[in-house]
Amino acid sequence: MKDKFFKYIHELQDSIVAGLEKIDGKATFQEDLWKRPEGGGGRTRVIENGNVFEKGGVNISGVHGKLPDSMQTYFGVEDADFFACGLSLVLHPKNPMVPTVHANWRYFEMYDKDGNIVDQWFGGGQDLTPYYLFEEDAKHFHQTCKTACDKHNPEFYPKYKARCDEYFYNTHRNEGRGLGGLFFDYCKATDDMSMQNWYDFVTQVGDSFLEAYIPIVEKRKDLEYTKSQRDWQEIRRGRYVEFNLVHDKGTLFGLKTNGRIESILMSLPPHVQWVYDHHPEAGSEEEKLVQVLQNPKNWV
Amino acid sequence: MKDKFFKYIHELQDSIVAGLEKIDGKATFQEDLWKRPEGGGGRTRVIENGNVFEKGGVNISGVHGKLPDSMQTYFGVEDADFFACGLSLVLHPKNPMVPTVHANWRYFEMYDKDGNIVDQWFGGGQDLTPYYLFEEDAKHFHQTCKTACDKHNPEFYPKYKARCDEYFYNTHRNEGRGLGGLFFDYCKATDDMSMQNWYDFVTQVGDSFLEAYIPIVEKRKDLEYTKSQRDWQEIRRGRYVEFNLVHDKGTLFGLKTNGRIESILMSLPPHVQWVYDHHPEAGSEEEKLVQVLQNPKNWV
Repeated sequence: MKDKFFKYIHELQDSIVAGLEKIDGKATFQEDLWKRPEGGGGRTRVIENGNVFEKGGVNISGVHGKLPDSMQTYFGVEDADFFACGLSLVLHPKNPMVPTVHANWRYFEMYDKDGNIVDQWFGGGQDLTPYYLFEEDAKHFHQTCKTACDKHNPEFYPKYKARCDEYFYNTHRNEGRGLGGLFFDYCKATDDMSMQNWYDFVTQVGDSFLEAYIPIVEKRKDLEYTKSQRDWQEIRRGRYVEFNLVHDKGTLFGLKTNGRIESILMSLPPHVQWVYDHHPEAGSEEEKLVQVLQNPKNWV
Repeated sequence: MKDKFFKYIHELQDSIVAGLEKIDGKATFQEDLWKRPEGGGGRTRVIENGNVFEKGGVNISGVHGKLPDSMQTYFGVEDADFFACGLSLVLHPKNPMVPTVHANWRYFEMYDKDGNIVDQWFGGGQDLTPYYLFEEDAKHFHQTCKTACDKHNPEFYPKYKARCDEYFYNTHRNEGRGLGGLFFDYCKATDDMSMQNWYDFVTQVGDSFLEAYIPIVEKRKDLEYTKSQRDWQEIRRGRYVEFNLVHDKGTLFGLKTNGRIESILMSLPPHVQWVYDHHPEAGSEEEKLVQVLQNPKNWV
């Protein structure tokens, strides 16, 4: 399973990068290979100053060795070894009419002293963070998520959509980071779902990413925008930073366990603003977005 | 003590705001009064888009009531009441040759069920975060801190200077947030120092703030700078955000205990950049700064 999924994320990174470069039409991803001293490493691919993408990364990593102390405490185990691999991506478009997107698909194995697998699970998801609300974009993204889920279990979409709204939530702002999508974790073998079934599900979602995102980019990338709409995008990007640095478990875990900082923080937007006590005007497009962030909707 | 110190921070806010407005020459501080539902409130004063200060706040608050659960756990007490007041300031100048500055002076009391004081202490400090290194500025700032400390105890400056270097440290970047200054906490009555002695010390430091900072602003505010120097400032401001959102106990405490968000996050800079894997050129002024941040120096 681990070899199969590791191979899958390599291929997925290639196909996602190719799809994004094609629509960007200017910038290409720059690759950094890195090694983790304790075992494993990664292939970070970053795009900057493109026609469409101001900054973004599509990164894979596969790490293994002794489970770090903080993670042993977290999982309540002792002296365990582990293997973890995954693909993480964040894209920050230049045009405020094009939403930011985040996705992640990962697999984890834990071993006893004799190297036997004692636990294994998948996790991941994908979610959309627009600066202006185009309802048809939200519907398209969520519908693509739902279609991928429904091929496996009709309960998955509502369940993982709700978890996404719950997870990507800036509690200190009382609003969602974006319009959500899917979030799932600790997907372990049960009577209904073998690990192979979970593999099929997670790769189905991974395969749906370009289909979920590219048509939205295509529709919005050439729309005109004003300086004040760009300012609004940069202010909203501040909320993205707040979520990632204050609340996101993956980011904090990476920062506190000596992960590769530049690969983790590629998620942070290129240009960001903080304005004291900023509120959009009543009845404006900006306020319409905030209202939806404060009250997550069902899009399909 | 609590009334005396609360009165002191009101007066200090007035005099610091007056000093900053005078040197800015354009923008004035806007005042927001706010109430805390559970008891107390604050007087937030924010400056934006000045000649000198692009964004900043000089805030006081005095809050009281039942000690929040998370703080009870933190202090290892049960069913306690508390009073806390303090002044917090952060100033982000426009010109990258002028350093950002942060300061805070605070007082805390804890009570038993009958309203008797069971614990009380002062805390605070002030620290400098330049974007370009002018050694004479670092020396002036630290010398002013030392002079204030030395009037009370010759051991205070070395001790609180070291604590400042240790506290304002971005562990995930292996570098200090800035050039330090003073940081002290849990200053409680001992055989050597009564609470009145601590009051005298803390207010001495508070009174030294304008003297520590204004001459530096005066010297640097009209220096010319290039777009790439401004970019460097915005990239470094990203590290400021990282510290405040990932590591700063005060900020996280405020965010997780329903503090007034806009007063807490006034500390975040107005315009910020994140560039993937950015490194200053070898031998540049930018690299010189980073080397000092990685290896804190003694300035006096």
